[in-house]
Amino acid sequence: MNQLIIVKIGGNIVDDEEALQHFLKNFAAIKQAKILVHGGGKLATRMAETMGIHQQMIDGRRITDAETLKIVTMVYAGYINKQIVAQLQQYSSNAIGLTGADANSILAHKRKGNTDPSIDYGFVGDIDQIDAAFFNGLIQQSYLPVVAPITHDGKGQLLNTNADTVAQSIATAMSRFYETILVYSFEKKGVLLDINNEDSVIPVINAEYYQTLKLNQQIFAGMIPKLDNAFAAIEQGVSKVIIGNADELAELIIGKAGTTIQHG
Amino acid sequence: MNQLIIVKIGGNIVDDEEALQHFLKNFAAIKQAKILVHGGGKLATRMAETMGIHQQMIDGRRITDAETLKIVTMVYAGYINKQIVAQLQQYSSNAIGLTGADANSILAHKRKGNTDPSIDYGFVGDIDQIDAAFFNGLIQQSYLPVVAPITHDGKGQLLNTNADTVAQSIATAMSRFYETILVYSFEKKGVLLDINNEDSVIPVINAEYYQTLKLNQQIFAGMIPKLDNAFAAIEQGVSKVIIGNADELAELIIGKAGTTIQHG
Repeated sequence: MNQLIIVKIGGNIVDDEEALQHFLKNFAAIKQAKILVHGGGKLATRMAETMGIHQQMIDGRRITDAETLKIVTMVYAGYINKQIVAQLQQYSSNAIGLTGADANSILAHKRKGNTDPSIDYGFVGDIDQIDAAFFNGLIQQSYLPVVAPITHDGKGQLLNTNADTVAQSIATAMSRFYETILVYSFEKKGVLLDINNEDSVIPVINAEYYQTLKLNQQIFAGMIPKLDNAFAAIEQGVSKVIIGNADELAELIIGKAGTTIQHG
Repeated sequence: MNQLIIVKIGGNIVDDEEALQHFLKNFAAIKQAKILVHGGGKLATRMAETMGIHQQMIDGRRITDAETLKIVTMVYAGYINKQIVAQLQQYSSNAIGLTGADANSILAHKRKGNTDPSIDYGFVGDIDQIDAAFFNGLIQQSYLPVVAPITHDGKGQLLNTNADTVAQSIATAMSRFYETILVYSFEKKGVLLDINNEDSVIPVINAEYYQTLKLNQQIFAGMIPKLDNAFAAIEQGVSKVIIGNADELAELIIGKAGTTIQHG
């Protein structure tokens, strides 16, 4: 089976023009088949502030109301996605920007509260289906899919969807066709034992060790959703998940940097 | 040769949610192979105003400076394009949204003044090349391309490009593969002899009659760039260009409404 590298690039890199350029140059140089999923960065929040749109928060979670959805669609699917596509074209990567609505590639449904269905998260989508054959068709024709974290419900509604989850779902679906490696790249060197020490990267985490780290509260709370996504990927056929610094992309892919999430 | 219908939908329809829904439903019902090109509407201007970005004008022409380009990319390629794609999906049309940067489908260069090269129009693109094989590949696979009027220069720069010209260039390029019909649809019933009389639609205009109308100043100045684009299309292989009301799409295509631009 051929390898397919699915890279998710985090918001802090997307926000930093120089870091993004550097990353895209390295990303374009990856020889294997690849897919890029990008996060949103803080531009959407800044835009909402400039436009005087109040960001509603419930339990520390931003609610995607209609106005916020409009802004994230503009920023993620418009500005960031097309900026990345144009820059990759410059490096002779034949990038094509997509949301889940395009070619019906990622179908989702509007999130409902699990325990309390009366909770309205707004226009947030949980993924139901990835059209792996569509992504594979693009890759077979040497196109490079660049995916913004916006999905749709098939009934005309766009939905804001977590970029880590989009990357995980695509990697999982593509495991039918490829040996898939999912890379979560961001501004940190990997999963840290000590959040204040950049050199405390944990090289390998398996499911058992993850339980221990969580029980002992040795893991920064913000990392838990990312690690949950990583283990979900591993359990559903993704070969390897690597979490690490966007600056070290080539090293991450060959397992010479970052944290590797693996079976057993 | 099979028919291909290229429809350009104008800004006033894009701005009107109800009119747009109605149009998209009718557009989705077209049986022939098709491509949609959309304009921008006034949302970009309103966004710029809300954000306090001053719109620079030279000789009545808006200059696309860096901030304006950012906004038109967000609005055209993000909000409007994805909104249209999601709504077409609802009508079981497998739409895929694109700018010219995506898949390097429309290559352009930054406009320079013809007579005075020191005039800087900003980030405005004049089209050099359409990848007709890419568009044809999508159509052959039953995808429906939905094109935003943003192109790129292949060197990492996005460019704002006139939507009428995008539609004309695509129609011309696709004439290699199809009998192409280009429809410019907007809020008026066609090219009017009397701008104040909606019933003064001119049914057919050929090149000779166009010269007469221009000489006698019987044509509204705002229509001239559209008609120039229409004749450019006809001269380069497009079978027919029809200008008319977005509400009468089915009638326009069969020549039962609007103004038909034709040879001879």
